Amino acid sequence: MVTKLAILGSTGSIGTQTLDVVRQFPDRLSVIGLAAGHNSRLFSQQVAEFRPRLVFAADDESSFGNQLSTPEEMAAHPDVDIVVVAIPGMAALSCVMAAVRAGKTIAIANKESIVCAGDIIFAEAAKTGATLRPVDSEHSAIWQCLVGENTPPTRLILTASGGPFRTYNQAKLTTVTAAEALRHPSWNMGPKVTVDSATLLNKGLEVIEAHHLFHMPFDNIEVAIHPQSIIHSLVEFGDGALKALLSPPDMRLPIQYALSYPERWDNNTLPRLDLTQTKHLDFEDPDYNRFPCLALAIEAGKMGDTYPAVLCAAGEQAVELFLAGKLKFIHIAPVIESVLTAHQPIAQPLIADIMATGLWAKGVTAKTAEKGSWLC
Amino acid sequence: MVTKLAILGSTGSIGTQTLDVVRQFPDRLSVIGLAAGHNSRLFSQQVAEFRPRLVFAADDESSFGNQLSTPEEMAAHPDVDIVVVAIPGMAALSCVMAAVRAGKTIAIANKESIVCAGDIIFAEAAKTGATLRPVDSEHSAIWQCLVGENTPPTRLILTASGGPFRTYNQAKLTTVTAAEALRHPSWNMGPKVTVDSATLLNKGLEVIEAHHLFHMPFDNIEVAIHPQSIIHSLVEFGDGALKALLSPPDMRLPIQYALSYPERWDNNTLPRLDLTQTKHLDFEDPDYNRFPCLALAIEAGKMGDTYPAVLCAAGEQAVELFLAGKLKFIHIAPVIESVLTAHQPIAQPLIADIMATGLWAKGVTAKTAEKGSWLC
Repeated sequence: MVTKLAILGSTGSIGTQTLDVVRQFPDRLSVIGLAAGHNSRLFSQQVAEFRPRLVFAADDESSFGNQLSTPEEMAAHPDVDIVVVAIPGMAALSCVMAAVRAGKTIAIANKESIVCAGDIIFAEAAKTGATLRPVDSEHSAIWQCLVGENTPPTRLILTASGGPFRTYNQAKLTTVTAAEALRHPSWNMGPKVTVDSATLLNKGLEVIEAHHLFHMPFDNIEVAIHPQSIIHSLVEFGDGALKALLSPPDMRLPIQYALSYPERWDNNTLPRLDLTQTKHLDFEDPDYNRFPCLALAIEAGKMGDTYPAVLCAAGEQAVELFLAGKLKFIHIAPVIESVLTAHQPIAQPLIADIMATGLWAKGVTAKTAEKGSWLC
Repeated sequence: MVTKLAILGSTGSIGTQTLDVVRQFPDRLSVIGLAAGHNSRLFSQQVAEFRPRLVFAADDESSFGNQLSTPEEMAAHPDVDIVVVAIPGMAALSCVMAAVRAGKTIAIANKESIVCAGDIIFAEAAKTGATLRPVDSEHSAIWQCLVGENTPPTRLILTASGGPFRTYNQAKLTTVTAAEALRHPSWNMGPKVTVDSATLLNKGLEVIEAHHLFHMPFDNIEVAIHPQSIIHSLVEFGDGALKALLSPPDMRLPIQYALSYPERWDNNTLPRLDLTQTKHLDFEDPDYNRFPCLALAIEAGKMGDTYPAVLCAAGEQAVELFLAGKLKFIHIAPVIESVLTAHQPIAQPLIADIMATGLWAKGVTAKTAEKGSWLC
């Protein structure tokens, strides 16, 4: 039986790696939908190679034939077995909701939608029978470690590489450039998540994501810095046993598992770990002083309501300003914090409230960054 | 529902730790049988505390009431739900076979029976419906990592502490005493397995045990030295994912899991791992030159037939001579090797052939040790 995929965000880092996995399993996976926002030359190549029946391209005027009018239409299309959501940022939320409402199986690489609207997504999924399969390496690791366990875990430990500035002191952090922040020591990812890895905002978002995906109280989710990015996360049980998922850092493994579950498929193009070559796996506590985004994010997650939407939107805007050379690395956290402080939360928000909050937060972030003489 | 246990070898290291676990779960576990060979004062205390209906004591003349005539009778007793086999050495084989023939669930801490008679045990278990739950920490780890996976693993990695002499050079190994060999760096175990950990014979036996328990070809079983004994073993799948089971070294965890499976029971008396306190997990290849017992054992396992019985029996006798100060540490391997070389194997042996081979090998080991001027 061939599984029919729709890949939303096919030209990004996760999208292209998903297509790498698809190439390995022509008898098991078939791409029937491709959607992208930018990068139309690569998108044309993908369409030519995979010949999907359903196509959506936001910025392309050319016609690929059978073109849909929205990516949401593709996410909910009755012919699709698994929707791969590889769109970065809060922009993915409407597609995720469309897929959830349609009761789809969703391989979700987008963390912002879960962070901002986890309660709504899982309440709706419980009604429609939609299932979410995490693609983030940490959450995939936790998911894999929970397979077959019929007793809920007592603690989740998310590992974090610590990013390129793990060993930088405060003074050195003030001089960090966008180019340096984009050089991740272990993972090959898109620009937003790479900068978020450097500030540890990414790990904070992942804590909130884990809270929703695994119904785990925040106090039972920990973060451990693990520079080698070999152990992707751990799960602890009430008997003291911890299960861990290990592999060389390569996003194709969690992508493939989200498509092959509950099976595992032999794939010799995926790297193998040699523990005695690796020699050491190291762990340390995160430094909340040098990387204040981590605590900010967890706090926003605990406050809930529309605070996580502010966190995501302010984070997106701040990183955009940083990458454009308009905000210093060390000012990302205080800018986000001041927007969170200014926010008037909406209790039990609807999707529309979350979207509106995101728009508000982006505007305020840009203004705050300017006013606070934080611009470089 | 209370699970009724018979503990064979209740006064040894695994036996007493099994009773520690039982004390934590009075509503879930009940000891209805206790059997021991030696240490009658401790045994009397255990009988007084747990008041088992079935009792067997090999060297005790006193009557505990309702005393059975053999431990095999207890292993096969219809009232027993789980038989815990905590008897060390080849002596456990007849009890394991009695439990297997009776179709029991067997929590097996004894590796020699599986090493010597794995083919017979699993063929018989397939007929009677008996199931074996490993208690050895490495095999329990593998078992736990395989729970819920419906695709067979491609590789097993058994970790080994490396024992107390991991960093000793050849010269230093020649002077090793029994007292030094009994000081294990991370595990609290009985004397035989502790010395076997120092020679790495134990890890070789575990490779053979894993081969039988998990139907894995020898070439797909690896050994990695991991001095901290935190990762108890790993399992690799065809997609490159590795699952690992971690905990502070404490045998009560694998014992409890063998009794609680498929559930996990909260037990706050079991230690919790703090990864950032542990800081490092280290790995290196085993040194087959300094620890020749490892290769010897794997070779005997590959040759099969009655060779593993020779390995176990010669190993038991050699360790006995070493502990009595009659054989040097570095002569354990050559003595075992010479007995293996002298052996005329019996193809597809029966249990009786394995027992007879064990007796032969013990005798030859004692003589070989004497003749070879290996005695201290």
